[in-house]
Amino acid sequence: MKEETTKDIATTVMERCDLLGNISEESDALTRPFGSQAMREVNKIVSGWMRDAGMTVRQDAIRNLIGRYEGDGEETLVLGSHLDTVRDAGKYDGILGVMIALSCVQRLHDRSERLPFSIEVVGFADEEGLRFGTTFLGSSVYAGSFDRERLKLQDHSGTNLWDAVRDFGGEPDALEKSVQGRGDLIGYCEVHIEQGPVLEEYDLPVGVVTGIQGQSRIRTHFSGKAGHAGTVPMANRKDALCAAAEFVLEVETACKVQPGAVATVGEISVQPGAVNVIPGEAELSLDLRHRDDAVRESLRDHFEHRAAEIARSRGCEYRWQVRQETPAVPSDPDLTALLGRAVEGAGLPVIRVPSGAGHDAAQMASLAPVAMLFVRCEEGISHNPAESVTKEDVGVAAETMARFIQLMAEK
Amino acid sequence: MKEETTKDIATTVMERCDLLGNISEESDALTRPFGSQAMREVNKIVSGWMRDAGMTVRQDAIRNLIGRYEGDGEETLVLGSHLDTVRDAGKYDGILGVMIALSCVQRLHDRSERLPFSIEVVGFADEEGLRFGTTFLGSSVYAGSFDRERLKLQDHSGTNLWDAVRDFGGEPDALEKSVQGRGDLIGYCEVHIEQGPVLEEYDLPVGVVTGIQGQSRIRTHFSGKAGHAGTVPMANRKDALCAAAEFVLEVETACKVQPGAVATVGEISVQPGAVNVIPGEAELSLDLRHRDDAVRESLRDHFEHRAAEIARSRGCEYRWQVRQETPAVPSDPDLTALLGRAVEGAGLPVIRVPSGAGHDAAQMASLAPVAMLFVRCEEGISHNPAESVTKEDVGVAAETMARFIQLMAEK
Repeated sequence: MKEETTKDIATTVMERCDLLGNISEESDALTRPFGSQAMREVNKIVSGWMRDAGMTVRQDAIRNLIGRYEGDGEETLVLGSHLDTVRDAGKYDGILGVMIALSCVQRLHDRSERLPFSIEVVGFADEEGLRFGTTFLGSSVYAGSFDRERLKLQDHSGTNLWDAVRDFGGEPDALEKSVQGRGDLIGYCEVHIEQGPVLEEYDLPVGVVTGIQGQSRIRTHFSGKAGHAGTVPMANRKDALCAAAEFVLEVETACKVQPGAVATVGEISVQPGAVNVIPGEAELSLDLRHRDDAVRESLRDHFEHRAAEIARSRGCEYRWQVRQETPAVPSDPDLTALLGRAVEGAGLPVIRVPSGAGHDAAQMASLAPVAMLFVRCEEGISHNPAESVTKEDVGVAAETMARFIQLMAEK
Repeated sequence: MKEETTKDIATTVMERCDLLGNISEESDALTRPFGSQAMREVNKIVSGWMRDAGMTVRQDAIRNLIGRYEGDGEETLVLGSHLDTVRDAGKYDGILGVMIALSCVQRLHDRSERLPFSIEVVGFADEEGLRFGTTFLGSSVYAGSFDRERLKLQDHSGTNLWDAVRDFGGEPDALEKSVQGRGDLIGYCEVHIEQGPVLEEYDLPVGVVTGIQGQSRIRTHFSGKAGHAGTVPMANRKDALCAAAEFVLEVETACKVQPGAVATVGEISVQPGAVNVIPGEAELSLDLRHRDDAVRESLRDHFEHRAAEIARSRGCEYRWQVRQETPAVPSDPDLTALLGRAVEGAGLPVIRVPSGAGHDAAQMASLAPVAMLFVRCEEGISHNPAESVTKEDVGVAAETMARFIQLMAEK
């Protein structure tokens, strides 16, 4: 097989992202939740590409897709990202990292080159948490940090995670014991779109990630009293949506004055949910992030305190469930320095950027040293069909990763 | 057939309300939207009861159920209410009025008594507007005031009203021309639960309604920009849910300081609707009511103005659709005076109460003089499974209506 040039490689990566971007649970939008038929199809297609690149392919207990390219030594370098998406997603978030990792192994395979370590390319089965409202399901299983309490989580149709994993062909009772104590891993490196504005501001195709901010995911619920929209005077109402609205604005206001904090209410639903009935129940999600865990925890406690106050002042009840917390994760200094050298090898300055988003690397950090490479994306837009990267930038990222692997091999 | 006593009549009415209260689209709640299988079943059962009471039965173009008990003259008195419900409803709102009307005709039939006018008992097919977000569909067709623009309205699954009427066995293209210019009607009288606290405060079983407040139903939509919950700084966001939350609180605040005004946001939905995505779209319903049309219109315009301001201040767009407006309707003085005499005939004082809720009588007022009798309900609760009336109060209401019919005949 003839060796591909960087441009050819970038073309292949872009074409593959396009192709996978059409595999969705919805006809008019890219939506690929955990356990869906679309995920099955994507795993099947990527498996084929892995085999073409000389890898053996397996899927673990949660159906993370793992391609392994054998090396001469006992050690293993892991590359990858996730293959699931949010609702109405772009086609690069997660997928691009897996495709670039694949391109690096393809290049080694084309040259029949063996390294002193094996490479595993992982396509994680659930990072976004669209279906169960909890992120990093896939990488937490790979990293051996899965908490089996999560098996009880239910999706919007009432199916719990245990059944969803089983239906997807996985082994729900084996999720906890996947890889504890795995000693062969020398690192995990993930390529991902930046999802922010920094690289665009610096006019650079790639940047090296300093660390990933911590995250809290919470569900809160206000219970008031349903009633007739025409007959219950305003003063006598216990309107759960008004309580929820007050909470939404409280979250926005508090984060606006706390530097670096971001918080989002992305889901809201009311019951009974009819035009002429006062909402008796309102449920909402809260996603809270900050680079400093102490600041995040303090904000989280403040929000619970305010939810309680808002409920009390309106004669409502509230419930508060912290569904998931991920501490801030700094990148590994040595691995990140090596990634910086790989960037310099492309004749580019090394820009260090923080990650505002969570990534599978945050889970993998409990198992191995981690590093991340960000790729510039247009206007920092992600989780949106307008997500866009250039082929040129993708070429630089693929070249950088290939050089990084070479530097690892020379170490 | 032996004549029933007032107590027997009340028992039958209560049993029938219980029976119909179990016919629902949902297994664990009473939810009976227009066009549902549950509505078909209810229409079938009530048709049987109508025939048992000596009536001929027909359904009009929107499938209002109409039982007719022939009299000796050319004129017609209409009694009735609606057979549809809100989501998770109580079993008396609407249904009680139809059952009491039926009981009056049954009593005439048992006595083989003919009046100088015919009686039509109507079970309207859609008053609550659960499915299409617009009230009085049934009575607007009966009254000949149906606006065919409404045929384009869509339910949550995207089915429009035209198709829904057709699927329900009706004639969508005939909705406008039902009964225009029908000159035989001498009045419409509706029994309904009060849905408010006044009768309970006065410790009286029934009250005579002075009029029905006007109502505006609006859908408004805020469009911002979806984005990643972790990477878009708070200051750069165009969060459609935050705009919607501000609007919800604006509505609450403005109505609290306007005597007699009530407004409710009963439905809200956001897109894309995922935990870790900033909402790009938020849509909500607004139900606004006041006894004075000028006050209601002024509030409505104020809310649109504020929606525009909120959108502009956040870099969002807004849409504003007035889906339906019903002017305030005073009861007919003569018919209401007669209804008051019927109450006095039961040895009770006549209490006059305003109607905070809209009723089919508001539509019927364009066709005939209208009067309404309210029945006390526990704690004024309605649109809720806790809706409750006593058999004793139902007995008083049935007796009052029978006396009202007799007074009409003696006129």
